[in-house]
Amino acid sequence: MTDPSEKSFLDLSRRGFLAAAAGSVAGAGLASSGAQAQQPENLPNIPDDAVGRPFPEADLQMPLPPDQRLGWCVVGLGAFALNHVIPAITRSQTCRLAGLVSGNAEKARRVATHYGVPDARIYDYESFDDIANDDSIDVVYIVLPNGLHAEYTIRAFEAGKHVMCEKPMANTVEECRAMIQASQEADRKLMIAYRAHFEPHNQRALRMKKEGAFGDIRLVIGDTMRPLDLSRPRDEWRVLRDLAGGGSMMDIGIYALNGTLYFLEESPVALVASISNPPDDIRFRQVEDLVTVQLRFGSGALANLSSSYTMNENRIQILGSEGTGLLNPATSYVGNTLYETGSDVGTRKVPVQDSSLRQFTGEIDHLSRAIIENFTPDTPGEMGLRDVALIRAIYASAERGSWVELNPDGTMRG
Amino acid sequence: MTDPSEKSFLDLSRRGFLAAAAGSVAGAGLASSGAQAQQPENLPNIPDDAVGRPFPEADLQMPLPPDQRLGWCVVGLGAFALNHVIPAITRSQTCRLAGLVSGNAEKARRVATHYGVPDARIYDYESFDDIANDDSIDVVYIVLPNGLHAEYTIRAFEAGKHVMCEKPMANTVEECRAMIQASQEADRKLMIAYRAHFEPHNQRALRMKKEGAFGDIRLVIGDTMRPLDLSRPRDEWRVLRDLAGGGSMMDIGIYALNGTLYFLEESPVALVASISNPPDDIRFRQVEDLVTVQLRFGSGALANLSSSYTMNENRIQILGSEGTGLLNPATSYVGNTLYETGSDVGTRKVPVQDSSLRQFTGEIDHLSRAIIENFTPDTPGEMGLRDVALIRAIYASAERGSWVELNPDGTMRG
Amino acid sequence: MTDPSEKSFLDLSRRGFLAAAAGSVAGAGLASSGAQAQQPENLPNIPDDAVGRPFPEADLQMPLPPDQRLGWCVVGLGAFALNHVIPAITRSQTCRLAGLVSGNAEKARRVATHYGVPDARIYDYESFDDIANDDSIDVVYIVLPNGLHAEYTIRAFEAGKHVMCEKPMANTVEECRAMIQASQEADRKLMIAYRAHFEPHNQRALRMKKEGAFGDIRLVIGDTMRPLDLSRPRDEWRVLRDLAGGGSMMDIGIYALNGTLYFLEESPVALVASISNPPDDIRFRQVEDLVTVQLRFGSGALANLSSSYTMNENRIQILGSEGTGLLNPATSYVGNTLYETGSDVGTRKVPVQDSSLRQFTGEIDHLSRAIIENFTPDTPGEMGLRDVALIRAIYASAERGSWVELNPDGTMRG
Amino acid sequence: MTDPSEKSFLDLSRRGFLAAAAGSVAGAGLASSGAQAQQPENLPNIPDDAVGRPFPEADLQMPLPPDQRLGWCVVGLGAFALNHVIPAITRSQTCRLAGLVSGNAEKARRVATHYGVPDARIYDYESFDDIANDDSIDVVYIVLPNGLHAEYTIRAFEAGKHVMCEKPMANTVEECRAMIQASQEADRKLMIAYRAHFEPHNQRALRMKKEGAFGDIRLVIGDTMRPLDLSRPRDEWRVLRDLAGGGSMMDIGIYALNGTLYFLEESPVALVASISNPPDDIRFRQVEDLVTVQLRFGSGALANLSSSYTMNENRIQILGSEGTGLLNPATSYVGNTLYETGSDVGTRKVPVQDSSLRQFTGEIDHLSRAIIENFTPDTPGEMGLRDVALIRAIYASAERGSWVELNPDGTMRG
Repeated sequence: MTDPSEKSFLDLSRRGFLAAAAGSVAGAGLASSGAQAQQPENLPNIPDDAVGRPFPEADLQMPLPPDQRLGWCVVGLGAFALNHVIPAITRSQTCRLAGLVSGNAEKARRVATHYGVPDARIYDYESFDDIANDDSIDVVYIVLPNGLHAEYTIRAFEAGKHVMCEKPMANTVEECRAMIQASQEADRKLMIAYRAHFEPHNQRALRMKKEGAFGDIRLVIGDTMRPLDLSRPRDEWRVLRDLAGGGSMMDIGIYALNGTLYFLEESPVALVASISNPPDDIRFRQVEDLVTVQLRFGSGALANLSSSYTMNENRIQILGSEGTGLLNPATSYVGNTLYETGSDVGTRKVPVQDSSLRQFTGEIDHLSRAIIENFTPDTPGEMGLRDVALIRAIYASAERGSWVELNPDGTMRG
Repeated sequence: MTDPSEKSFLDLSRRGFLAAAAGSVAGAGLASSGAQAQQPENLPNIPDDAVGRPFPEADLQMPLPPDQRLGWCVVGLGAFALNHVIPAITRSQTCRLAGLVSGNAEKARRVATHYGVPDARIYDYESFDDIANDDSIDVVYIVLPNGLHAEYTIRAFEAGKHVMCEKPMANTVEECRAMIQASQEADRKLMIAYRAHFEPHNQRALRMKKEGAFGDIRLVIGDTMRPLDLSRPRDEWRVLRDLAGGGSMMDIGIYALNGTLYFLEESPVALVASISNPPDDIRFRQVEDLVTVQLRFGSGALANLSSSYTMNENRIQILGSEGTGLLNPATSYVGNTLYETGSDVGTRKVPVQDSSLRQFTGEIDHLSRAIIENFTPDTPGEMGLRDVALIRAIYASAERGSWVELNPDGTMRG
Repeated sequence: MTDPSEKSFLDLSRRGFLAAAAGSVAGAGLASSGAQAQQPENLPNIPDDAVGRPFPEADLQMPLPPDQRLGWCVVGLGAFALNHVIPAITRSQTCRLAGLVSGNAEKARRVATHYGVPDARIYDYESFDDIANDDSIDVVYIVLPNGLHAEYTIRAFEAGKHVMCEKPMANTVEECRAMIQASQEADRKLMIAYRAHFEPHNQRALRMKKEGAFGDIRLVIGDTMRPLDLSRPRDEWRVLRDLAGGGSMMDIGIYALNGTLYFLEESPVALVASISNPPDDIRFRQVEDLVTVQLRFGSGALANLSSSYTMNENRIQILGSEGTGLLNPATSYVGNTLYETGSDVGTRKVPVQDSSLRQFTGEIDHLSRAIIENFTPDTPGEMGLRDVALIRAIYASAERGSWVELNPDGTMRG
Repeated sequence: MTDPSEKSFLDLSRRGFLAAAAGSVAGAGLASSGAQAQQPENLPNIPDDAVGRPFPEADLQMPLPPDQRLGWCVVGLGAFALNHVIPAITRSQTCRLAGLVSGNAEKARRVATHYGVPDARIYDYESFDDIANDDSIDVVYIVLPNGLHAEYTIRAFEAGKHVMCEKPMANTVEECRAMIQASQEADRKLMIAYRAHFEPHNQRALRMKKEGAFGDIRLVIGDTMRPLDLSRPRDEWRVLRDLAGGGSMMDIGIYALNGTLYFLEESPVALVASISNPPDDIRFRQVEDLVTVQLRFGSGALANLSSSYTMNENRIQILGSEGTGLLNPATSYVGNTLYETGSDVGTRKVPVQDSSLRQFTGEIDHLSRAIIENFTPDTPGEMGLRDVALIRAIYASAERGSWVELNPDGTMRG
């Protein structure tokens, strides 16, 4: 099994970035061959006492030396930042946690203590712009409510930093455009944190598609849902339109939408959508619960998507003339699985490296590499804008009760 | 869902160890309720601009502050150390990588550079005993071939350090006894690295058993195998008896054996075993390939185990009067899964937190805690000795072609 | 486990129909309790030689005595008739094979010989109306191409027989109406062969829904597809519009559509659809390949459906506020499986009786019972009309590129 | 996919047996190709009205004409006979139900009425030998408790009939020998009803093994269990040693044992076993509950088996140097499934025809064919004897607490 992530690591070393540390710490993975590999004729010649052995060439990727790692500053210390973003930074190959921004000074100090961030690197929302003078910070990771993404991204660019911004990029297309412009003016990288692009099962499915395992892709079915739990602080702001920009589609449906375009590698030409909210549920006064979307593509492909804040599903399926790829779950934090079906393979669980850590560290390392090697990230601001535009079109279609035609950048025509 | 690891973290904070950092960075986990939780009557009151929010109380466990973490020194820089042990130390809650021991100075320097270990903390097998003078090192992790475990464990104790030793503990019972004695004389902790005890699916299965989900356990079936690949340096020493102590049973069958006793919570009273090697396969000149073992327990429980270096399986099944727990895979690095079957549940995939990282960091953090709080680790030297004794009894039974009776410590009677 | 089919058998015996033969030949089923049932205090008292034992009361349903079975006549001897319909008639509880209608006299004679049908009961398409004088025939099963359903159904009613008609009921709503009228004028039963209504997994899922296992159903996702194989004679006529009435939606998509309404227990108020055909594929000159449909219901529920003749999927999923029921496959000849997910159950494979034979014999026995006991079949002509009307609306929506509003009987409004 | 059962049907027609009725009513099966088959250049030429079409050549096997079918007489009308044997006879290709034998005259009359057996063909255990004068009866199917198999098999041979005998063949090796001798003296066929040999998933697994899909088979793991339910009359006699001959091993463990030898295609040279009964459970006063068995084969293969009357499992796994075949469930009435794992395939669910009906009708049709074409059945008396001998050796090994050596016919050496 060759893992796509290993591939990217090989690419990495080919570019010379980590030439001294080639390889991957990937580990052996789930599946290995039952086949009896070619065996040597003699037993290995190893003495009985401790000896130094050569460097394991094949599967080792070590982190950058500490002094070469980029300094990341996390803006917003909610549950996602504390449970996923900060641990991923400390576990990445290329980063160190260099700064924290929070309106709760006590919380920030507590986090800083445990992660070894000096007090001087703690900022609040007023002092945030002072990071411009902080050379230890190279990148800012925006983990705020959607409605605040634009402001803090632009302020980070104005401070001369690179930006990783959580999905969805912003509440409106206009905000997205302003963020992209700020990135260009500052000559700094802007990346949207679409972690599924760095999740090994999704990467493997895309590679199989490119290699023809599914034939011509005619249909994608994407259903991503999760129950919103207002008793958890992390979910509270998601029911407020100004902060969240919308409901399930902005938060979780975006995975089905973005994944569909990831696998089809084209933008839709038209869509039609329905929205349905359960009556008498306070959660859905300002934002939507259930969304269904039908999409048409220039290639003739179609897609059926759904999104919900009251039910539970996480599946993306790619259907082609020669076979099917099913990710189920597709974009969970853990446990993602890829199945292939086809005339030759029956139904097969495709062996893929685990994804739980990789998807988070992968996206973080990707932006670091993009900065160090100066290339455009795979999930740039333009992708974030496209998805926000499409979600706005979904809302418009549901409101109008009709199809809407789309431009290549995701915005509505006419 | 309450995760067993979270439970241990709660225990942890109850003991006051990490009182200032209560919670867990565990993440949201696989399964969440489809049920509509109790909803408040009013929408949350959150302003539209960035504000500090309270500390997410429920699910956050932060690492110890850097200056309170224990210093770990890794002895042996093979593939397992580089791919699993060292990353786990850097990703743990309680440790820092403080030293490296290797006979390959260039390799050690390269690793040290990437992980930020000062040159002065690099040792070779001659200078190893100098760690006695190195206060930055609290714990030594032995990742050498089995035949070298005893020597370096004892030297580590003589240097006044605590020891984590890879499984199997040693090649012989006598070596195990000497290691335990050295631990006692040095008044330092000795733990055997049975990572499955810290793997969430295994922990969940044990908890279900204790809660009666399976009724009386009557039978355990354990089959753990992997194809040995002599083209990979990491596997070379495993075909040499002096270094490996035995074949598949020492390396991979020990998971089935140890897991069986973990779930039954008792030692066997007798066992009978068979060994079979493929003819003309150079790998099995000094060590065994295929082993089958039948075990009897005082409670009346029975067990069927198998182990192999040429086939591929990883399953432990607990069968009781009221239901069945199936771990499949049971002890992989990634992808472990727990199924429950019974009259009320049909067949159910039990939702459990991911295990890929946890099992490695969990065991490392466990020893750190045992040192800081001064308790005996859950997988002490006595457990390692018991398992080595049982494997020796397995070999004796297969050679004699008869049952062997066993003492409670795992050694053969008479 | 109580199986829904057993329930219906109990209902059956309660109505006194088969009082002399109460019980079911259903068999023991997949799952049984691991629990130790209440045990008697003494061993059973059974002599050592052969003795007559009481009738096994609980699970036995024997067929009607031969002279009480209804005579069925099969019209059309294609692959489906020979592989499924005729074997199911001979394996049913209530039927005997009484007649055959074919334009290929040699084929009919060969089938008659093997199944013991007298030569006098062989008809061709001209002599078909002579069944009016054949008292051995009670029911006619129409297994002709869709475009011929109306003509032969009406001729059967005119001959005074009851009719089972394959799905889809006919090519047009007008034909459906004429068939229903002929049924009423002849005072004979008309049933459409929706076998999934008699398939145990589908029945179980509906019962779980009614019992509240899924909470409020908000969304149904139905995807039914199969690759059309022009090299097989059975598929040839399906590419001709006059005979087939349409493409994948008429043949296989109807399972997703009918199943959605079966589980939601309501008719849609509006739908919107897209159709896409692969260019240069001769199969899709007259009929469609890929269809996607979005449906809205008065209750607020939504549905996403798809259908195809070039890909392969068979799944119906019911998503509710408390849990999810997934049939996958949902309507295969064999191997259908039901999964339940929810906060209490994790993911559970629901134990259900096998479906491979039951779905075919079940629908046949259902019509026999409806005739003997004089009740309206569960899948009457009105249901067939509704589905044909909805498929016509799907085609209209795709052609117009807009939503269509629907009447309760499935026809388009306005 | 070519199904092994279809193969045997092809063999059948090649032998000229059913030349007039070549083909199989097998149906289309689960999996079909997603691949776009070679398409013709023009649309099929079929008129719009009803026409006779050619006989579907490829997949049709019709039953023998009624007057050519063999007459089967069922001895013992318990639940298994009523739920499985009699329906299978009426659904077979080659049989008609010709007689019934029971000690309960009322039960026999009731069954006879529903299945159309004339009163004159009802026998009791005294009048049984009168079947010698009943030319309508060709074959006798013995469905009595194990302890009565020998007596009624021998009486059937003395009456000049062929015999199908349920497994296990008898309680003792001596009885088995007497049955075989009676068969030879009467020049009539004797077959043991090992239905798994006619179950499509088992057949497919054997074919894959023969084709090398698993490489060299080194290990078979077989675990077959079911909870014995004394509240069901069908299970009552199974706790009495004289009638049952033993406990779980005789009833359900025999599937694991027979299956292991089926796949290995060799007899074991030695075995060792343990037995464990739950204390204070009345069911296990005369017969055993839990059995574990370890087997050695001359080829070097090993096997681990288990059997139980209190737990629930049904799995046979074939492990080879190149891959693994897993049947799970392996020998259920319904739902059997075959998985393949290997370096090339990952984990694959192998598409196989459904087994629920086929395994029962298949074995019945096999004996009919063996009679008509005069060949030895695949599961002859010698196989039944071998398995009874091995089970006796298992009991002896558990009692002695030691290995037992075995002869090629399954009996103990020395």
